[in-house]
Amino acid sequence: MATEGRKFKNFTEWFDELLLNSRIADPRYPVKGFIVYLENGKYVMECVRRKLEEKLEKDGHKPMLFPIVATEENFSKEAEHIKGFRQEVFSITRGEEGSSLILRPTSETIIYPMFSIWIKSYADLPFKVHQSCEIYRYETKATRPLLRVREIPWNEAHTVHESPEDAERQFKTAIRIYSEVLEELGIAFLLLKRPDFDKFAGADYSVAFDTWNPDGKVNQVATVHNLGTNFSRVFEILFERRDGGKEYGWQLCYGMGYSRVLAAIIAHHGDDVGPCFPPEVAPIQVVIVPIPFKGNEEEVINYSREILNKVREKYRVILDDRKDVTPGEKFYHWERMGVPIRLEVGPKEVASQTITLMRRDLRERLTVKIEELEKTINKIIVEMPKIFLAKSRQILGKMIIDSYTLEEAAEAIENKKIVRACWCGNIECADFIKTRVGGEIRGYRYDIHEEPFSNCVSCRKNSRYVIYIARAY
Amino acid sequence: MATEGRKFKNFTEWFDELLLNSRIADPRYPVKGFIVYLENGKYVMECVRRKLEEKLEKDGHKPMLFPIVATEENFSKEAEHIKGFRQEVFSITRGEEGSSLILRPTSETIIYPMFSIWIKSYADLPFKVHQSCEIYRYETKATRPLLRVREIPWNEAHTVHESPEDAERQFKTAIRIYSEVLEELGIAFLLLKRPDFDKFAGADYSVAFDTWNPDGKVNQVATVHNLGTNFSRVFEILFERRDGGKEYGWQLCYGMGYSRVLAAIIAHHGDDVGPCFPPEVAPIQVVIVPIPFKGNEEEVINYSREILNKVREKYRVILDDRKDVTPGEKFYHWERMGVPIRLEVGPKEVASQTITLMRRDLRERLTVKIEELEKTINKIIVEMPKIFLAKSRQILGKMIIDSYTLEEAAEAIENKKIVRACWCGNIECADFIKTRVGGEIRGYRYDIHEEPFSNCVSCRKNSRYVIYIARAY
Repeated sequence: MATEGRKFKNFTEWFDELLLNSRIADPRYPVKGFIVYLENGKYVMECVRRKLEEKLEKDGHKPMLFPIVATEENFSKEAEHIKGFRQEVFSITRGEEGSSLILRPTSETIIYPMFSIWIKSYADLPFKVHQSCEIYRYETKATRPLLRVREIPWNEAHTVHESPEDAERQFKTAIRIYSEVLEELGIAFLLLKRPDFDKFAGADYSVAFDTWNPDGKVNQVATVHNLGTNFSRVFEILFERRDGGKEYGWQLCYGMGYSRVLAAIIAHHGDDVGPCFPPEVAPIQVVIVPIPFKGNEEEVINYSREILNKVREKYRVILDDRKDVTPGEKFYHWERMGVPIRLEVGPKEVASQTITLMRRDLRERLTVKIEELEKTINKIIVEMPKIFLAKSRQILGKMIIDSYTLEEAAEAIENKKIVRACWCGNIECADFIKTRVGGEIRGYRYDIHEEPFSNCVSCRKNSRYVIYIARAY
Repeated sequence: MATEGRKFKNFTEWFDELLLNSRIADPRYPVKGFIVYLENGKYVMECVRRKLEEKLEKDGHKPMLFPIVATEENFSKEAEHIKGFRQEVFSITRGEEGSSLILRPTSETIIYPMFSIWIKSYADLPFKVHQSCEIYRYETKATRPLLRVREIPWNEAHTVHESPEDAERQFKTAIRIYSEVLEELGIAFLLLKRPDFDKFAGADYSVAFDTWNPDGKVNQVATVHNLGTNFSRVFEILFERRDGGKEYGWQLCYGMGYSRVLAAIIAHHGDDVGPCFPPEVAPIQVVIVPIPFKGNEEEVINYSREILNKVREKYRVILDDRKDVTPGEKFYHWERMGVPIRLEVGPKEVASQTITLMRRDLRERLTVKIEELEKTINKIIVEMPKIFLAKSRQILGKMIIDSYTLEEAAEAIENKKIVRACWCGNIECADFIKTRVGGEIRGYRYDIHEEPFSNCVSCRKNSRYVIYIARAY
């Protein structure tokens, strides 16, 4: 039975091997920070994309596609924003004549000039759009496939509202949508309000979805930002109020990174053999492996085909009837490809009109009557993400260590944990924590209020926040 | 009744107005050749994308995602290719240290270095991948929204084969897949083998799908290229043959432009009011418009809701129950949004338990019994693209004018026609034709053999090809 030891012991080695072996991604592209997404990686990201887009569109977000380039002029307009991103942009030398262009590091400065053309009145609000695209950030830290790349596949949504209250309601809706996506994929996360010094450039405040990684570094998979009127003032997104006056729109933007969600799926549900994809996003959901013995090859193959025909309409299924490969090799191969359900069919199954079903989440073998196969698969498909989520939450819970001193915190970080500690709120202490603990303050809980349980871990004075400290990708 | 006069009389004006009015695209982005795709344009392109990708994946193409950047070194490797694209590339100033990068104008030089890592033996072949992405070409001609842009949303497929025969078989499969996509969208096209001087840079030969545009310019929506071993030699895509020897892979690449297919859908099926989207790709397939009279508002609305509930599971449907807008304004609005089927519900319909159905393709009103509604909608959804295709073919047929002299040809081009003429095959004559006729040689038919019907339209010597001459986007 496969264990999950390796991913916790040596995450980098486990992850890098898996990416190639499981046809997720190939990091051997000759430009730093740019990788090739192979068929399984691309397929899973595409499923996550459709899932997210469906929820966004159901909530009234219109799908759009904005250009990849911002003019230098528009990009430079919002002072905080430009300060936050200036060091990270790729510039294009041949673009519009007489003005230079930058590749989007995020699309505020591309989208909002259009908003100012489109939005005239309260009747146009709320205005909600989304796009799935790639963004470009010239990362100066070490790059890591899926987790820290310079070409980032993501979805970004941008909304404009009539009032701060309406923007706040949408903020909670965005949190709900992202939470649903992650939970339905079995991914546990911490919902953290970022400290002011770490919020999105140009935002009033930011909330992030940080999920655990086996090496203890958190993986930020999504963020939601309240922009207030910071951008609408700069890009003149003015609307006529119900009372006839003019006002700047209240804006949000939020994004989810597809490659980081993919990384979380792999890291949370994978084992020593490879990834196990949640059925909803698995490129292949069910593999049928015939196990013929001499003399009954034909009836085993025929029975396997019968099963294939029974389930092929409803599931993404493959019958692996290769002749020159042993069943054991096939088992291993399809586990590496992340297939969550395996059907094994031998003479015994033919004789009893059953199927041996191996579910990858529990690594359990069941004997299923042929007439109950569909029902059983359906049940597993519904159950599996819930089991994944429960397990993922359990691991996250165990990974969080309460620390009362900087030494304790440093030791926890060293041991690949996430630290929960108390903080006075001063930036000097934040800096001190970062230096001494070796992790950064990721923020305090947005979803629940946590009452400080000690004085500030750094200065020992009264604390205001229960913060989470971790290293991060 | 709406006519289709305007699109033929003044295409540019009709098209530009429609793009904004029908929420297709906004060309007012402040960088030349870059446009914003609005919700309807984006939605239709996304449907076309899924349709094409499904067919490609059914044929064994694996979905992948390759980086947007090529290294200057790889980009420059294939001499013909670099010659063809050099003038069109956008370069990036901040990229990998010590080497410059270009934004993909097409991905051969990005993908093929990876192929050379992945492909080792005949057992790896055929190798087929596809990706949907945007490509970047610094167009020096006048840009036009959807038709000639600098940021081009498309799908590209790349394949490697064991033999030229296998590559040829795949060539025909690619032609079949693209033909199906276009025909299922009701788009007629000419399948033209490009003359040597106009083939893809680095290809042995190219076949293109040219479709008609109301202004007489053809719109190339897709191309299929046989690359022979031109690229595999340069990028060392070598495989071990069945007999143990080594050989360069035989390659194809082919692409379909989503914005150009969208332009064809609009141009072919639109009328004076707006576009009519084929039901399969329509953002909204059915709109329900209540037509209440005083005293029966409630029963009309209730009946409309009943109809909505009847069809909402199967179709993308909207009930327009706005109170401050007249039914006539609603009709006009949803026609502008390209909705192919309208259901009108008034007191008469309530009384007789019927629905008045307006199908946009024939602009016909039918009275449908409520229990036959679903069957009728299904029938129309199946029929509509066929009717579109028949009509589109008829227009294409009428647009093609046989010409025996350069004067006739020039007059036909002037009159927004596509010229069919005979050509000796010499490049001098091609140049002469271009100068004198005002259109370029698009190629000769790939799908059928056409026997020359006169001497060369230019030099009057024996002709080898029946060519099509047109202006092009």
